[in-house]
Amino acid sequence: MMQKQIAFLVIGDEILSGRTQDVNVQVLAGRLAEIGARLAEVRMVPDEEAVIIAAIRALSKGYDYVFSSGGIGPTHDDITADCVAKAFGLGIDVREDARKILGTNYKNGEQDLNPARLRMARIPDGATLIRNPISKAPGFRVENLFVCAGVPKIFAAMLDDAIPQIEKGDQMISASTVVNLPESAIADPLRKVAERYPDLAIGSYPQESDGRYWAEIVVKGFDETQIDAAIAEVMAIGAN
Amino acid sequence: MMQKQIAFLVIGDEILSGRTQDVNVQVLAGRLAEIGARLAEVRMVPDEEAVIIAAIRALSKGYDYVFSSGGIGPTHDDITADCVAKAFGLGIDVREDARKILGTNYKNGEQDLNPARLRMARIPDGATLIRNPISKAPGFRVENLFVCAGVPKIFAAMLDDAIPQIEKGDQMISASTVVNLPESAIADPLRKVAERYPDLAIGSYPQESDGRYWAEIVVKGFDETQIDAAIAEVMAIGAN
Repeated sequence: MMQKQIAFLVIGDEILSGRTQDVNVQVLAGRLAEIGARLAEVRMVPDEEAVIIAAIRALSKGYDYVFSSGGIGPTHDDITADCVAKAFGLGIDVREDARKILGTNYKNGEQDLNPARLRMARIPDGATLIRNPISKAPGFRVENLFVCAGVPKIFAAMLDDAIPQIEKGDQMISASTVVNLPESAIADPLRKVAERYPDLAIGSYPQESDGRYWAEIVVKGFDETQIDAAIAEVMAIGAN
Repeated sequence: MMQKQIAFLVIGDEILSGRTQDVNVQVLAGRLAEIGARLAEVRMVPDEEAVIIAAIRALSKGYDYVFSSGGIGPTHDDITADCVAKAFGLGIDVREDARKILGTNYKNGEQDLNPARLRMARIPDGATLIRNPISKAPGFRVENLFVCAGVPKIFAAMLDDAIPQIEKGDQMISASTVVNLPESAIADPLRKVAERYPDLAIGSYPQESDGRYWAEIVVKGFDETQIDAAIAEVMAIGAN
């Protein structure tokens, strides 16, 4: 089956200001690879309504599925849920099931839900909830968009609920080898290998340590026999 | 002076596959902040010509300046320079000045420039070169786009040459304080502070350690007096 094409929208001033190092891209990429889906694009945008809405619309239309991270907490700069509702032309309000779940996170239950906390139970009409076993406040899915929290531990936990909703694709197989020559010395024969295997993606990653240069060659595709053959040809380059 | 709005295009399958953790976003954001410019959007795309060209055109049109990282090495998957030429409708060929610079990186100078290495001297017509003190192969600037290497050490070194080409803006000032309460307990008074200071950006970042919750509040703007006043109001929330 064809690989599903996935986009990831990272929402938050703290990423673009350099204050916070994003780590969710790598986690999502890994989880998608496990089910034979492909992270095809990432966009990082600030906490600005017009920018978020435009990005949601463009990515939702352009890809099979979209994940977002960030902006679903209780404070005034958490505007993702409202942006999602506007992007899809949906109403949004506090929802009973979300309110109940949220209440389980506080000592006195729903009685502890002040207006700020209640913001986290605002869910666009028709959305399905995404489970948050850590701090309870749920994510949600609207159409092909999975709205997740940005805090890495919660983001990863929400993927446990969201990822199984994506149809599995053929598992991409990856193999790699090291060639103990500078990348620029092997580029020509390597290009010829790539031309002989048009169905494979062959990547070359230059490495350097203490003035010694080598290249790691990664071969990806769906046919193991082809991949093995290509890896053997790459190793032959290094042996010459 | 108004802050320049900057976009960053990260090019490379290795980022989207999760194989490599990007670290250049944070470095670029910090360097831009130093000169009063703002990283306003990041896109990460694979090594695919049509996708790269579309992203270059959209970002170059939408922002004052664009930085790109990745895809300017010697191997077949390094297609950024050709994509840039196509995106701007320019010719591209090996250029004498780039070839000379590249030669300085090898024992026998330009004699060591095999066809693969010569690829790194292919520069779109009319571009100006960006200095690479590490491995010599230059980056280049076309119109408002700075094309840099993806290897973090080289990317950072190229910024030394590229960043001074951007007009300085007013320095954004940032201050932060910690409130020893869960974010959801302070969200309402915090929103009121944000409403009283519409010229400031007030961000709330929930923190958790061993079941203890607190919030870091970051206040940003251009007027130090306003920022000090807002920080005092935020601290008063925590003291109540």
